[in-house]
Amino acid sequence: MNLAKSTYQRIVLVSRPKGMPTEENFELQTLPQPSPDSLGEDEVLVSNHYLSLDPYMRGRMSALKSYAPSQLLNETMIGATAGEVVASNYAGLKKGDTVTGHLGWAEMGVINGQQLRRIDTENIPLSAHLGILGMPGVTAWYGVNVILNAQPGQTLLVSAAGGAVGSVVGQLAKLKGCRVVGIAGGAEKCRHAIEHQGFDACIDYKQMGSKDLDKEFVLALSQAAPEGIDLLFENVGSSGFDAALACLNPHAKIALCGMVAGYNSRAEPLKNAGKLLTMRATLQGFIITEQLDSWPQAIAELTELVINKKLACRETVAAGLAAAPGAFIGMLNGQNLGKQLVRLAD
Amino acid sequence: MNLAKSTYQRIVLVSRPKGMPTEENFELQTLPQPSPDSLGEDEVLVSNHYLSLDPYMRGRMSALKSYAPSQLLNETMIGATAGEVVASNYAGLKKGDTVTGHLGWAEMGVINGQQLRRIDTENIPLSAHLGILGMPGVTAWYGVNVILNAQPGQTLLVSAAGGAVGSVVGQLAKLKGCRVVGIAGGAEKCRHAIEHQGFDACIDYKQMGSKDLDKEFVLALSQAAPEGIDLLFENVGSSGFDAALACLNPHAKIALCGMVAGYNSRAEPLKNAGKLLTMRATLQGFIITEQLDSWPQAIAELTELVINKKLACRETVAAGLAAAPGAFIGMLNGQNLGKQLVRLAD
Repeated sequence: MNLAKSTYQRIVLVSRPKGMPTEENFELQTLPQPSPDSLGEDEVLVSNHYLSLDPYMRGRMSALKSYAPSQLLNETMIGATAGEVVASNYAGLKKGDTVTGHLGWAEMGVINGQQLRRIDTENIPLSAHLGILGMPGVTAWYGVNVILNAQPGQTLLVSAAGGAVGSVVGQLAKLKGCRVVGIAGGAEKCRHAIEHQGFDACIDYKQMGSKDLDKEFVLALSQAAPEGIDLLFENVGSSGFDAALACLNPHAKIALCGMVAGYNSRAEPLKNAGKLLTMRATLQGFIITEQLDSWPQAIAELTELVINKKLACRETVAAGLAAAPGAFIGMLNGQNLGKQLVRLAD
Repeated sequence: MNLAKSTYQRIVLVSRPKGMPTEENFELQTLPQPSPDSLGEDEVLVSNHYLSLDPYMRGRMSALKSYAPSQLLNETMIGATAGEVVASNYAGLKKGDTVTGHLGWAEMGVINGQQLRRIDTENIPLSAHLGILGMPGVTAWYGVNVILNAQPGQTLLVSAAGGAVGSVVGQLAKLKGCRVVGIAGGAEKCRHAIEHQGFDACIDYKQMGSKDLDKEFVLALSQAAPEGIDLLFENVGSSGFDAALACLNPHAKIALCGMVAGYNSRAEPLKNAGKLLTMRATLQGFIITEQLDSWPQAIAELTELVINKKLACRETVAAGLAAAPGAFIGMLNGQNLGKQLVRLAD
């Protein structure tokens, strides 16, 4: 084994953020590489090429009770990865296979082979398996198809429209024949949504003054969705969610996927919850990892759409593990366009 | 015809309330009785014995867009009634039949016979057809059975537990084997819910100080429902709803039936909407008049339960049409116990 490769890097959480995370919450560590000889039964040594950064990680960094256990301090930050098998004691995988798994913020790792998924990188780039064909894509698919059951002619609103989930939601809804309106932060994201992902309209919330944000948001929505909102895929919460409630049509459906506005600070309270009653709305909060039965169909359909170029796939890629904390903080601030990844190896 | 009976009284809305309605919004009018000879094809003249007073009426009194058209000014206030046929040109009904219908705040009225429902008053008192076997009972049945699908061992919370809907919700959920917790205003309502309607616990929100109402509510709920809330039947909105959200269990279900706290004033904004996501809750706003398919089954089941004395039926009855505005305002202030009615004739 080459001496230069005898170590690898990982990032651990050393303190829990108060509000927005900072670089100081993380620590980059250098560890000796696991030896292929040390692998136990069914274990696999994986070299990670890409790390996925996702908003749910912020929730795990808190000690608060949530739908999943907290990230432990001084342990490798959790996260989905895509990479290549270096050595395998698992019958289903061999050296050179490309796989996805949850190896965390680390350049390599050892994991039971049953927890890896072998993936096709002939027709589809490795990184796409963490985005449009990974959790964000399946989340979008489930919301649009199962919870919202989008139908032609309906108006669908999606927040964080420039993000990994929102950009797929909009495209899937367009394929279903919906009128699609997005909310995103920044002119470039809005332009991209309209020009490259087929959105009919996109509201740039960063263009809004803050004097009477509620009223401004409702006005913008009623212009972008003059016939009202039938379907809402909510990723953000706060003022945009509240304004969307004000514009709901009767029997509107809401897929509540994220409330990222409240992850780092107290979310704005909702003023228009009464609309859920007067519009006889249905709302469902969901976590895609609880819907494992839907994954095979979702991935099969998404794969076909990607191969047939019916879905555009946009990524923002940071270079090197050391860039992960900054990229993560940037993502929470909405600086990414599409799926936020970190490239760990070529 | 007796001269003393040649007139009847009705109440019209003469101005739209700002906030809580006042007596001045209503006007009692005396009109000549319709003559049986003047009835058109299929028309029926009904003498109303009971008028139902319901929170939805407050919504109709506003000019705001809601799920139903506004009550017109200077027209008879809308409302459900139970009474007796005086004369009939409709083949399906004859003089002396007891019926329910929507004849409004009036001692009598003329209506197409197809819009009346003939009811059994041999085994069941006339007034019950406006309450436990009328809209409030069907609302409770639909929420408990269809939306919440209550199961043995689940904890169900219902607000306005002393009201026409809430008291039936609690009893139906007990019959399903749930642990039932109520929220009601006043010690008498709470005592009644526990002693006569089988509630396991009931929180008297009027006992709460207002210093930190949110915290006090959550504390009270966590004591009354130590295992958390699986099912929520929400009639009120505001602080109690918010506190309930804070205590939801994973995969909780919410039937959103009313937001009466916001009918007369701006509702308190919801601080805990994020729980809908983290608990993967399902919420459905509903209006029972849109679920007509469910009425026959609901009424059949409720009738059997009432006849078999499995459901207790509590009413607050005001005497005479002139008392209706005061009784309505009292109901909005939570002064009624069970179904609020006005007796118009004996």
